[in-house]
Amino acid sequence: MVRRAAAEFLGTAFLLAAVVGSGIMAERLAAGNAAIALLANTIATGAALVALILAFEPISGAHLNPAVTLGQALLRQMPWRQVPAYVLAQIAGGFAGVAAANVMFGCPLFFAASRARSGPAQVLSEFIATFGLLIVIWGCAKSRAPAVPFAVGAYIAAAYWFTASTSFANPAVTLARAASDTFAGIRPADVPGFVGAELAGCVAAAFLFSWLSRPSGAVGAHALED
Amino acid sequence: MVRRAAAEFLGTAFLLAAVVGSGIMAERLAAGNAAIALLANTIATGAALVALILAFEPISGAHLNPAVTLGQALLRQMPWRQVPAYVLAQIAGGFAGVAAANVMFGCPLFFAASRARSGPAQVLSEFIATFGLLIVIWGCAKSRAPAVPFAVGAYIAAAYWFTASTSFANPAVTLARAASDTFAGIRPADVPGFVGAELAGCVAAAFLFSWLSRPSGAVGAHALED
Amino acid sequence: MVRRAAAEFLGTAFLLAAVVGSGIMAERLAAGNAAIALLANTIATGAALVALILAFEPISGAHLNPAVTLGQALLRQMPWRQVPAYVLAQIAGGFAGVAAANVMFGCPLFFAASRARSGPAQVLSEFIATFGLLIVIWGCAKSRAPAVPFAVGAYIAAAYWFTASTSFANPAVTLARAASDTFAGIRPADVPGFVGAELAGCVAAAFLFSWLSRPSGAVGAHALED
Amino acid sequence: MVRRAAAEFLGTAFLLAAVVGSGIMAERLAAGNAAIALLANTIATGAALVALILAFEPISGAHLNPAVTLGQALLRQMPWRQVPAYVLAQIAGGFAGVAAANVMFGCPLFFAASRARSGPAQVLSEFIATFGLLIVIWGCAKSRAPAVPFAVGAYIAAAYWFTASTSFANPAVTLARAASDTFAGIRPADVPGFVGAELAGCVAAAFLFSWLSRPSGAVGAHALED
Repeated sequence: MVRRAAAEFLGTAFLLAAVVGSGIMAERLAAGNAAIALLANTIATGAALVALILAFEPISGAHLNPAVTLGQALLRQMPWRQVPAYVLAQIAGGFAGVAAANVMFGCPLFFAASRARSGPAQVLSEFIATFGLLIVIWGCAKSRAPAVPFAVGAYIAAAYWFTASTSFANPAVTLARAASDTFAGIRPADVPGFVGAELAGCVAAAFLFSWLSRPSGAVGAHALED
Repeated sequence: MVRRAAAEFLGTAFLLAAVVGSGIMAERLAAGNAAIALLANTIATGAALVALILAFEPISGAHLNPAVTLGQALLRQMPWRQVPAYVLAQIAGGFAGVAAANVMFGCPLFFAASRARSGPAQVLSEFIATFGLLIVIWGCAKSRAPAVPFAVGAYIAAAYWFTASTSFANPAVTLARAASDTFAGIRPADVPGFVGAELAGCVAAAFLFSWLSRPSGAVGAHALED
Repeated sequence: MVRRAAAEFLGTAFLLAAVVGSGIMAERLAAGNAAIALLANTIATGAALVALILAFEPISGAHLNPAVTLGQALLRQMPWRQVPAYVLAQIAGGFAGVAAANVMFGCPLFFAASRARSGPAQVLSEFIATFGLLIVIWGCAKSRAPAVPFAVGAYIAAAYWFTASTSFANPAVTLARAASDTFAGIRPADVPGFVGAELAGCVAAAFLFSWLSRPSGAVGAHALED
Repeated sequence: MVRRAAAEFLGTAFLLAAVVGSGIMAERLAAGNAAIALLANTIATGAALVALILAFEPISGAHLNPAVTLGQALLRQMPWRQVPAYVLAQIAGGFAGVAAANVMFGCPLFFAASRARSGPAQVLSEFIATFGLLIVIWGCAKSRAPAVPFAVGAYIAAAYWFTASTSFANPAVTLARAASDTFAGIRPADVPGFVGAELAGCVAAAFLFSWLSRPSGAVGAHALED
């Protein structure tokens, strides 16, 4: 269990370093063109997810995301008693990764972000982004488990562009991105709205997916108990 | 069957959200450079297709496209009586996805597109795009079925650039894109020409592929009856 | 054999449509930035190769390239008597694809390119590009055959940038690109130099690879006879 | 063994040609926008790694990197006596590849780079980049060996953006890039700092990974002896 938590810590740290670090690099080089900066940020994030999930899946399942861990517990694919260790490791890893990115680019270890990300369109975006992420993970895992790393990387690369919030879709990522006042930052005051929408998207996806994947002979309304 | 239609609905909804939403985001950020906007739109669409087909294939086959459903029926790979439910779910899903994208980006739920896409070059482009899409799906499915999601994502990413129409290649996508007056929109008056070309491309591909893949010992001209 | 030639024709036609069509679209949209135009051209070409090889490999092996067909014959992996049909189908397909791209974008069916591509650096580039392509195909096919479509798409995407000639690496592509005076064109007078370098790269790769992959117990100098 | 060294030589040569050549092409075309140049350089490098590792893995394991060779020896996955031949072949191949790129683009065979890459942020970046690369390779190889080429290509594409040094992560690459005064160059005086950080990252990764992957029943502190 210590090793699994260490894998979640390390994987989430590299994920946040990739998200925040590539955002800094992209903004510095893009000469003010936000589309080019987001394109670089997208490619770096999607590629990092592919590499990290391939690397850490055999050890911890490579959730790297409290919403995924919560969803797995809701679908009874992992015991609830393992959830706290996973989530703590993910959050701690997230801050470690942001610190690494900040230091690599000559910024303070931590400094609160000032970028506003609020309003109903942003919150709706996070709900949809997280809902879709979990449907993609579970749908793919059901019969094509080895393709999950590619499905997640591809989904997040797309969602960076098709949601108005650029798809955080991950409470640990949301918390940690508040600690870097750079391209990928989020104002601390806006974090609760994002995290709430992400958790709601996770629960909604768990209900929908357990109905969607029920064996066709099954009946009744106990959606999460199959 | 309800679950399969739900999967087609949900998958097509996310596909349209990706196409339309990423178009809006890309155009807003690209500062007038249409190549950068289309590049972002391309990457988001191709990546979304990979993720969504991986996720929904085990449930419904992940057609997400009436031309694919029609083609499967023509090749006798699905019964004709399932076609209406698939197509209705795809069209309804398409509009739901466009509505989600419109709302996420602060636009009206639906608003008719004004972008003209007409003329013989556009119609020829849709014929070629859909013809090629179905040949790629069937060729790949014949002996490399697990690679189909990657083949489709790659083909559409390429076809966004090599056809003059940016390759809609999907009647449900065409209909729904008429309901968003943004980067990816199409004037309602131009929809019939696109849909007609797509259906013609589908039928042509079905004839060609059934000849192309016939076991070498077969003879005769009953192309669609193997 | 007719079906295999038809598959080579169709696959090479789509490949050329992708190369030339995406070049036209990219140049029109890129507002003069050649790097963005080549990036779009690269992504479209690499993605098209992945899709087309996945689709046509089960039928004809998806050479789509006379240098590959020649190399297979040199390595005795296909009979010499099949070579002419393959090469003719590839060349005819290449011109058909260029015609399709030209017409889709409102250009004449065929019109001779005026873009100069000559000099020793260009010729050396084509030698290296083709040599590398064949080594990659054979190395990958030896023990990872299902990954060949991805290896080829990735190699050509890279080679578009790392060779001074943007890596045609394909005599059928070279010939056909002379028939479109657009982004991807090549002046007819420069075609022989390119084709010669491509064939030389193919022969060099065949010699090297048959030595490189010889079982470690083998001895002697009959490089191409294992 | 001669063939394995030849494979390492050839693979590293193509890798360096891709890194340096695409850097030259990208800088020439990008009209001063460094983000677009790095994006092209990223895509070319990541794609080249996928293709080259797929091609050379069956022959030599496709290390193409002295840090990988050292790491494999540290984890006792290859005998120490093979290390010198691998490392020499990689370094010689690296210089051959840089020479090829220089000549293809009309530059001198070798010319010392003038681009400064120094300071603690750069050195820390190389430590993190190499540490992460080896964790990704070993994590993926443990249970998903066929996916290693994709994991490496994706990781390096991401690390080009999320480290301040653009992630050389390879001592042979670092040495050879000092011999081209172009986009990808590094001032010879800065090479030792980079190589030292890369080797330190390799050793740290070997310690961490042997702990992380130890069977859960194991005890004791002999980290590298399992």
